[in-house]
Formats: sequence, structure tokens, C-alpha cells
Amino acid sequence: MDIKPYVRKTHYYETDQMGIIHHANYIHWMEEARVDFMEQIGFGYERAVKEGIDFALLGISCEYKSMVCFGDTVNIQVSLTSLTVTKMTVQYEITDALTGKLRTRGESIHCYFDSNRKRPVSLKKVLPELYDLFTSLSVK
Amino acid sequence: MDIKPYVRKTHYYETDQMGIIHHANYIHWMEEARVDFMEQIGFGYERAVKEGIDFALLGISCEYKSMVCFGDTVNIQVSLTSLTVTKMTVQYEITDALTGKLRTRGESIHCYFDSNRKRPVSLKKVLPELYDLFTSLSVK
Amino acid sequence: MDIKPYVRKTHYYETDQMGIIHHANYIHWMEEARVDFMEQIGFGYERAVKEGIDFALLGISCEYKSMVCFGDTVNIQVSLTSLTVTKMTVQYEITDALTGKLRTRGESIHCYFDSNRKRPVSLKKVLPELYDLFTSLSVK
Amino acid sequence: MDIKPYVRKTHYYETDQMGIIHHANYIHWMEEARVDFMEQIGFGYERAVKEGIDFALLGISCEYKSMVCFGDTVNIQVSLTSLTVTKMTVQYEITDALTGKLRTRGESIHCYFDSNRKRPVSLKKVLPELYDLFTSLSVK
Repeated sequence: MDIKPYVRKTHYYETDQMGIIHHANYIHWMEEARVDFMEQIGFGYERAVKEGIDFALLGISCEYKSMVCFGDTVNIQVSLTSLTVTKMTVQYEITDALTGKLRTRGESIHCYFDSNRKRPVSLKKVLPELYDLFTSLSVK
Repeated sequence: MDIKPYVRKTHYYETDQMGIIHHANYIHWMEEARVDFMEQIGFGYERAVKEGIDFALLGISCEYKSMVCFGDTVNIQVSLTSLTVTKMTVQYEITDALTGKLRTRGESIHCYFDSNRKRPVSLKKVLPELYDLFTSLSVK
Repeated sequence: MDIKPYVRKTHYYETDQMGIIHHANYIHWMEEARVDFMEQIGFGYERAVKEGIDFALLGISCEYKSMVCFGDTVNIQVSLTSLTVTKMTVQYEITDALTGKLRTRGESIHCYFDSNRKRPVSLKKVLPELYDLFTSLSVK
Repeated sequence: MDIKPYVRKTHYYETDQMGIIHHANYIHWMEEARVDFMEQIGFGYERAVKEGIDFALLGISCEYKSMVCFGDTVNIQVSLTSLTVTKMTVQYEITDALTGKLRTRGESIHCYFDSNRKRPVSLKKVLPELYDLFTSLSVK
């Protein structure tokens, strides 16, 4: 399956007094891109929760390569770079939609947990369909 | 009881590219001031929820009188200006902590609802202690 | 000219612990819809600033009619309901994109100011093209 | 000099529908703690900018160890863990103010740039007083 980049316009309220998009907003964008990724693969976040799996964030990181301004549109390319039965790593490449210039590289690490009993679980056991889907999409 | 103003430093991430605090943040500050108000009167928000009452926002408004910048500290004076058994109106006066200059006037209207069954209720019936407390503080 | 509603997906980070979209986000959405409105009429916000006009917010209000949840998409219909040479009133009707159910009604009042000298000006004098455009779109 | 932890109450609007503080807010808190750190060492952020130095964020990361909820207060301990003439690394340890339990570990990397000409500079050359202050506080 070919994952399309998530396209995101910047908002005025995301700017700061330096005249650029404030860095905390990239964390929001990465979440939006994850949700979009789940929809693209046909297994929306809410369906995962309904079928018993939620995702807990273990860690997040961002490298800021160049600035984004109000009026810019960015493309966010999501890829699954590591997958085990208990956790996954997601990478994000944020580029300017017009020029392709790299803006930010990000990464988030998630574990799976039981959405009712709130404890870590094996995705392979609880939701094998989603585990197989993630496996097929995972970048080696 | 004498309600003290809620004192709030501004944050860098609250600024926008015009070099001032972005207007949406005042809505956050009003919420912070409401929570502080509940603590000052000895009936914290979480206790209200635990005892069966939650608050739903019916409306909110803000008049922007002068700008607030990063580095400024503001005082937010909360007052209950209207109270019935089903709803209440809260007013906010945001002034510069140093000069006393008026920055913003705000207002929010809330109804009470049953925190378990999620439907509107009479505060007087469900939590008379809090209703009486609000009544004693209400500005005629 | 026919102004199309601004279509907005809700984001996970916009939810609060009540399980709904937190009310402060509507203020953000109204801003996004204003920016979209300016683009639809062919006079983007940044062009206005470049040609000497910026907008200062004098007041904002929201009436919350029903709740919006993560996963919902809303339509935001913008209309200019009042226009003078020094200020304008913008109204927003936020409805569920699927059912058309009314979620929120909002209003914002703006004055025009000189983007260089930072003082209030007559839009009719400084940027008559934009004033005429607004006039033709203003709802009587 | 003994740097005191920055004490921060959590806000209702920082929660998400999982009933916890949304992870993006920690990035905000780290910024607040940096600003507080600059004040504690007697060289506020705005003074640095006025004297010609601004800070650009090169990277940020967070490891989430346990959840923070509305009503909690956290302590954020800031330390300078690496310092060169062109950049610095700041670490953050976020613990529960009541129990001391570790919530989050964070790190941010900044370079210095000329606040007028917007290009990277040596802090040692441009603002030796601040460089020496940072050096004296830097944790080896």
C-alpha cells in the first residue's frame, strides 16, 4: 500500500512572536498524520479502540531543520520503522508542500494497551488483523 | 468571603506573530481562574464532580480592551454575577498586574448537569451546599 | 459570490477529559474559517497585511448548542453581518458536516488598523478595493 | 547557584479524552521551565534578546514514564547538560510534586543566533557574561 503524505495548512494561531510556527505544534501535526495514516490503511483509530486496543506514547522527538511560517503548507510523510508485538516506532518527515524542502524529522514510540483494562498487551494476540496490517506496511 | 484575583504569568508559546498574546488564550485563562475560584471557596472542581455535579458551558464572550505581551503578568478577578438553580454567569476582569490597566472583560454561562447521567439538573437539589455557597458569593 | 463553508476535521489533541472537543478550540476554528473566507474572496490575509491593513480583534463570543467529538467533521459558515469604514462583524455557524445539526454560533468584531503604524484606520480610505469587496458580501 | 524546580499546576484544558494531560503540553511546560530558569539565574529571556541573543530550537525529545492528570502539580527540574560556544543542551525532569514520582524526562537543544541579523553566532563572543553564567551552571 502506498501511504500518501498528510497535507497540512498552517494556522495563524500556531505562530509565535518570532514570526514562525511555534515548535510545540509539530507534535500536534504528527498526531494528525498518525490518525490520517490509520484512516488510509482502512483501520481508523476509533475502530482500534472499539476493538480493544489503544496506544500509549512512550517517547517523542523532533529535529527542527528549517522554519515553517503562517501561509505555508506542509506534507507529512508517515512511516512505520519498527514493529514488535508490544510496541511500534513511527517516523515523520515534514517537508514544504511547494518546494519539498525538509522542515522537520520526528519520531514517536507507542506501546499497545487494552482499552478497557488499561494495561499493556500484545497487539498480535489482541488484534492480529491490525498487527498483520502494520507488519505489511513496516519499513525494514 | 473575599475572592483574590488569580495571578497569571504569560507564556512564550501563547504569543502570535503580531507579537502579542493570541486571543484564544484568554479563554484558557478564564478557565484557570474558575478552577482557582472553586479552590478559594473551598469546593474544588473535582470535589463537585465527585459529588455528582459537572458544569457545561453554554456561552462565552470576551471584549479585548488592550493587548497583553509575553513577560506581562495579569490579575484575573472572577465574580458570580447571576445564579439560578439551573445556571450561573461568571464574569472576569483581566488587568495588568503592574499597572492595573484593563486588558479584557470576559463572561461565561454554565449550566449544571449530573456528572453520571449527563443531563441538566438543579444545583439546589443535587448539591445544596454548593448552591448556598454560590448564593452567598453572588454579586447582586 | 457564494461563500462555501469551511470544512474542518476535529483533532484528538482538541478533546478534553469530558470526552468532547474543548470549547477554546472553537475560537481557533473561527480564525481558520476567517482566513479561508479571505482566500475564497480572492484577498488573502497576507495580501491585506502587505497592502497596509491588519485586523484587531475587539470582541468574540460563542454559544455552545451541542457537543462536538473527536472523529466528527464540522462545517463553518462565515458571514459578514455588519460593516462600517472602521470595523466589521463576522458571524459563524458551526454545524455537523454529516447531520447538519447546529453545534455552535459565534461572532467576532474586528477593527482595521495600519499594519505599519499600528493605529486604527478607515478601510475605505486605505484599501477601498477590500472595503468594496466586503460591502458586496455583507449580509444586510 | 541552586536552581529550584519550576512548579506547575495542570490545567483542565490540557487534558484529552483519555483523561490525562495530552503529551504535547509537556513541550509547553519545558519552555515555561526554561524561561523560569533564565529568571532564576538573573538573566531573563527578554534581556538576552535585547542584548542581541535569541535561541533557536534544534531538537526536542520527551520520554513519558507515567501519566499526569488534571489536579496534579508537577516539579520541573532544569539542568544544562552540555554547553559549547554555539549550542546548549537542556534537560528536564518532571516529577509529581506530591510523591516525587518521575513523570517525564525531556531534552532540548538550542543554538544561539543574532536576534537582529537572524544568523547563528558564538555566545562567548556576543554575550560573554551569559556564556560564563551558563558555564558556571553547566552540569558536567
